[in-house]
Amino acid sequence: MPGTVRPMRIDLINTGTELLLGQTLNTHAHWLGGELFELGLRIQRQTAIPDGEEIRLALLESIPRSDVIVVTGGLGPTSDDITREITAELLGLPLEQDDSVLEHIRAYLARRHRELNANSYRQAQVPRGAEVLVNPFGTAPGLYFPPQEGAVAGVTRTPHIFLLPGPPRELKPMWRDQIIPRLRAMMPGDPPQLRNFKLFGLGEAQVAETLEAPMLATGIVEIGYCVRPGEVILRAIGKPSALDACGELVRGAFGGRLFSESDELMEEVVVRQLTARAETVAIAESCTGGLIANRLTNVPGASEVFGWGFVTYANAAKEQVLGVPAALLDTHGAVSEPVARAMAEGALRVSGADHALAVTGIAGPGGGTPEKPVGTVWIALASRAAGSPPASPTAGAARALVVREHFPFERDMFKVMTSQTALDLLRRRLAGHEPA
Amino acid sequence: MPGTVRPMRIDLINTGTELLLGQTLNTHAHWLGGELFELGLRIQRQTAIPDGEEIRLALLESIPRSDVIVVTGGLGPTSDDITREITAELLGLPLEQDDSVLEHIRAYLARRHRELNANSYRQAQVPRGAEVLVNPFGTAPGLYFPPQEGAVAGVTRTPHIFLLPGPPRELKPMWRDQIIPRLRAMMPGDPPQLRNFKLFGLGEAQVAETLEAPMLATGIVEIGYCVRPGEVILRAIGKPSALDACGELVRGAFGGRLFSESDELMEEVVVRQLTARAETVAIAESCTGGLIANRLTNVPGASEVFGWGFVTYANAAKEQVLGVPAALLDTHGAVSEPVARAMAEGALRVSGADHALAVTGIAGPGGGTPEKPVGTVWIALASRAAGSPPASPTAGAARALVVREHFPFERDMFKVMTSQTALDLLRRRLAGHEPA
Repeated sequence: MPGTVRPMRIDLINTGTELLLGQTLNTHAHWLGGELFELGLRIQRQTAIPDGEEIRLALLESIPRSDVIVVTGGLGPTSDDITREITAELLGLPLEQDDSVLEHIRAYLARRHRELNANSYRQAQVPRGAEVLVNPFGTAPGLYFPPQEGAVAGVTRTPHIFLLPGPPRELKPMWRDQIIPRLRAMMPGDPPQLRNFKLFGLGEAQVAETLEAPMLATGIVEIGYCVRPGEVILRAIGKPSALDACGELVRGAFGGRLFSESDELMEEVVVRQLTARAETVAIAESCTGGLIANRLTNVPGASEVFGWGFVTYANAAKEQVLGVPAALLDTHGAVSEPVARAMAEGALRVSGADHALAVTGIAGPGGGTPEKPVGTVWIALASRAAGSPPASPTAGAARALVVREHFPFERDMFKVMTSQTALDLLRRRLAGHEPA
Repeated sequence: MPGTVRPMRIDLINTGTELLLGQTLNTHAHWLGGELFELGLRIQRQTAIPDGEEIRLALLESIPRSDVIVVTGGLGPTSDDITREITAELLGLPLEQDDSVLEHIRAYLARRHRELNANSYRQAQVPRGAEVLVNPFGTAPGLYFPPQEGAVAGVTRTPHIFLLPGPPRELKPMWRDQIIPRLRAMMPGDPPQLRNFKLFGLGEAQVAETLEAPMLATGIVEIGYCVRPGEVILRAIGKPSALDACGELVRGAFGGRLFSESDELMEEVVVRQLTARAETVAIAESCTGGLIANRLTNVPGASEVFGWGFVTYANAAKEQVLGVPAALLDTHGAVSEPVARAMAEGALRVSGADHALAVTGIAGPGGGTPEKPVGTVWIALASRAAGSPPASPTAGAARALVVREHFPFERDMFKVMTSQTALDLLRRRLAGHEPA
């Protein structure tokens, strides 16, 4: 990977057995990673360890290679909360009772009609030379250990070490009020910026082959890729001027497939486009079973642009709700181009919307045939011709587009790919990037 | 923390710069932690590193201390995907082209109308002595490195090393089909078994207070809790006899709220119940916007029990599609008990299904009032009385149940909680556990 944005090397150590048993998502790593990146810093290594003795090994490995170590958790009252004690021991610092901390704990407990206990005195022990980070939302104070010369064998200068409480409501305010100012003081200058380019319908390799060399030539610091179902996220980090140059390169190479230059989801883009045009969309779904409508309605404000959805899984529903002619279903089968088209036109007519998307396909595992294997899907987009009255089927039909796709994936992936492709059809029409 | 069920030490290394920038939650660590835990194994150390050279340092630290190393990501086609090369180099294994892998990649790309490129040949390079883990859902194969004597200086025997592709849809099937059997083979004897008890509508503390002591008294090895939206998963590990005794305790304490004693999702339970009774359900959704239908249709075989869904986000859709009287909407508002009931009865009538679920609520962020704050939702279940003809509204009305809930959460959480509660209403009716 190209050089990190700043030479400062940051290790994050998350303590908590629950992080390793599939019980808890590590949201601290996610949140702190974003917080640090906004400062122009980045985590070079994130480690999650169980509560207890493992913190010793983790710190011994991290101290020699880090400029900054951030530890979350293990400051609590229970017997396996030993981050404070182990850190002090490794740095050779004696623990001493801090009366202001003890008083804070006493007052905190008193407000909750509880009294000091043995653990309170443990939490009031502060390693000599460490700075107390006040915790307005809990009993355990955070701790900051400034660098020391020769405290650890083989290490000239120990890193800046921050110990933070595990509960998010205690950690986050402490981070913003007491850690960020200390980190800023360590680093002059403007941080570089990050920009995402979200591309639909391209492979990671194809994007890399086309864009990596010219983008690096703009002088950006770094390029990264993240592949998600139906999209490739190209991540560029560098100066604004270089990022703008990258934007032109991406638009030039893949303009129609570039659906966002931020963190927007496909459904957010579509809702934004429709809102800007004061237009609406109706959805008729067979094989996606409601996923497209569900994605749209995850976006706040969707009710302004979406009012009618139909999950016509059964043929009878396609006939009675959308008016798909029985003859079409008999002749071509439910999974066919004419039925997809009729579903979209029916949804347009019934709802009076400006646009209608319809999908019909074979999600599997069963139901495939040689001509229509599992994963086959037709996706239709019908739009009322400008100026034509609502509920005007023929006008709708005038701008119908139907595509056939093949997504031979597991059921959930099939549904996601189909919904992504359907939403992108509408996005491209609304953006004037209609595929030829 | 309770002692690990087995002494095997497992390191998980997640590669991916996006994991360290606050861009992506590390769901792999979460999912794999749970998978290993169910085998009676645990991750002792989880590490996330950027794409690129950092994998070298991470492996050098991990190899001496681990019995098993699992690495995710870095097998892709781009320049910073070097996990394969670095691992081979550290273990002193030459890379050799594997023609079967190359053929797999060629066929995979051909299905997507793409051709082999330079990176394909890189992905077809297999370190001598490593076993290929076939990847049906992508180009990059996984790799398994069996232990070697004296391959790494200072290490008598290298750990079992598994390299897995990063995309979840590639990683998960590979894990279940090809890694789990290998891990099982490394564990002599019967690992203790694990049983999940999935409970709806209870708090973790309530479950723990009621069940933890008596369950531990049965002699099980360990109890774990996992809280998900709308459910608490109580996980017991131990001998089958003890687990059976735990089952009786759970059923005795919370029978009606226990919806699964396996990994079944709520929607899987409901589809199974309906299939067994050869009955069907229709769904009419306002505030959930298609989520309930989407969840049902994620279950293979759903088409046997679900054929009609309605996303009536707009009032006009509630009137025209479900026949909700305009007077009801005017008098009580769209978010009200009578409208929820009329939606369910309308869905029952229009679809001719045996049961119909309907939801109408205020997902927010806007739209709340003092009487109906954001998060207010009515959930209705209507079922045709046994023997009554299809499309018989009054018969449907005869067994209508409407509940009011308040879920003052973020939009997505509101939708999940509402869908979970609606599905549980149907589950309890089908199980004969109808709430009083």
